[in-house]
Amino acid sequence: MIATIVGTGLIGGSLAISLKEKGVANWIIGVDQNADNLQKAQELKIIDEGATLQDAMQRSQLIILAIPVDALLQILPAVLDKAGPEHVIMDVGSTKQQILQLVAGHPNRGRFVAAHPMAGTEYSGPEAAIKNLFTQKTMVLCDVKNSDEDALEVIENMVDKLQMRLVYMNAEEHDLHTAYVSHISHITSFALALTVLEKEKEQGRIFELASGGFESTVRLAKSSPDMWVPIFKHNRHNVLDVLDEHIHQLQQMKQLLEKEDYETFYKLIQKSNKIRKILK
Amino acid sequence: MIATIVGTGLIGGSLAISLKEKGVANWIIGVDQNADNLQKAQELKIIDEGATLQDAMQRSQLIILAIPVDALLQILPAVLDKAGPEHVIMDVGSTKQQILQLVAGHPNRGRFVAAHPMAGTEYSGPEAAIKNLFTQKTMVLCDVKNSDEDALEVIENMVDKLQMRLVYMNAEEHDLHTAYVSHISHITSFALALTVLEKEKEQGRIFELASGGFESTVRLAKSSPDMWVPIFKHNRHNVLDVLDEHIHQLQQMKQLLEKEDYETFYKLIQKSNKIRKILK
Repeated sequence: MIATIVGTGLIGGSLAISLKEKGVANWIIGVDQNADNLQKAQELKIIDEGATLQDAMQRSQLIILAIPVDALLQILPAVLDKAGPEHVIMDVGSTKQQILQLVAGHPNRGRFVAAHPMAGTEYSGPEAAIKNLFTQKTMVLCDVKNSDEDALEVIENMVDKLQMRLVYMNAEEHDLHTAYVSHISHITSFALALTVLEKEKEQGRIFELASGGFESTVRLAKSSPDMWVPIFKHNRHNVLDVLDEHIHQLQQMKQLLEKEDYETFYKLIQKSNKIRKILK
Repeated sequence: MIATIVGTGLIGGSLAISLKEKGVANWIIGVDQNADNLQKAQELKIIDEGATLQDAMQRSQLIILAIPVDALLQILPAVLDKAGPEHVIMDVGSTKQQILQLVAGHPNRGRFVAAHPMAGTEYSGPEAAIKNLFTQKTMVLCDVKNSDEDALEVIENMVDKLQMRLVYMNAEEHDLHTAYVSHISHITSFALALTVLEKEKEQGRIFELASGGFESTVRLAKSSPDMWVPIFKHNRHNVLDVLDEHIHQLQQMKQLLEKEDYETFYKLIQKSNKIRKILK
């Protein structure tokens, strides 16, 4: 199968590597409006050739859109306009409601499978693409009842070959749960980096003292605003809701410290320790 | 050299393993008020024998106190009372001002070296002890001018053999900087776990969807309240100060989302990205 990857960054590039390696596709066409990235992806042998979207669509069956969710809103309708019954189109966006509302009435909606691989790193661009990024990770497929059966089969087969776990959700559930388990983590990490950069004027001290704990809570703050601002924009309502709760929890801790109520503070930490049971 | 480790948990146990392996000590006596932990530490061959503190002090040169900072306030003065010129006493506490104020006038203050290894994991107890926890990590020594030269030399030699980086600070600086690069990370992680446990009633969904990003921001929430409540208590002033700033940063993000001012939000994320230059 010939596959096209639109957006040859961390996710698109890592998918390209895996599709080839796991025998899902034998030829990968890359499409990227950033000519530098396209060239790098080719130099790194992540893609076999670069092409325009129109040219790529004429020659490939599987088209994966691995671009920020705001760009997806622009491009998906145009891709569906050109799609025929031989095409399967998949996205990898972190938000789903807006994009699915946008294409709900499109005559070729059935060729589209809305997907979100729960995998990534804080880095971006084709140099960040890595092998096995998706192995043993979860792939969420949304509103699959609106995808044609044969298109869904192509994607389910791909997910299986990539050795991913498959989870089905509707778009509304997806956006709610990802706000809790992904989007809020990025907000807290960005805010923590800003806090420390603001308070810690002696940056050499951060370098000397930062240990694993600090690094792991703040590493997501290296993530690209090009990807994340559109996510927060699309999932604004859910993100605000969980952010409100998070600020409330921090204020509660602050008040307990102010009052020196260490007994209640102890109980709160014990309660938070319950996350042990849920995290692998 | 015979060394005594008081507190055979994550840090004490890992130190015991390293002291033996790197040839700093050839016999390790464990002291622990928790008899189960002491037995486990012996079964795991982390320590060579268990003993009472009094017995252990009579036979060892190096005594390392690896216990929560509140217990340290109780035990350090008693240990110094019994210390002779043959003893070197070191702690590993995460806060320094209170403990150093407490023993400032003690006649045997010189035998004590105040230390804080910037290393750890979210786990606790002797089973959590691991090899090479300290390799390439930073050891902070505080107010070393108040330690006897020969005692300091023993510790500096140990730090060198453990292949750690050495940093000197006064207690005030130490408590300020660790609030920024360690204590606040734990507060945010506890609060994030509480937020998600509060909002996400379908805990199976966390399990399915949680990826590396969520895990890394929330893993510190597995940490023990026995260790952390005393740290927040001892460093209350600095922790409140940095927590205030962190809440302020989150509120700013919330307001930008409410106003849909994505341009300023983008700039904030770009600013937080500067953490890339500081983190290794």
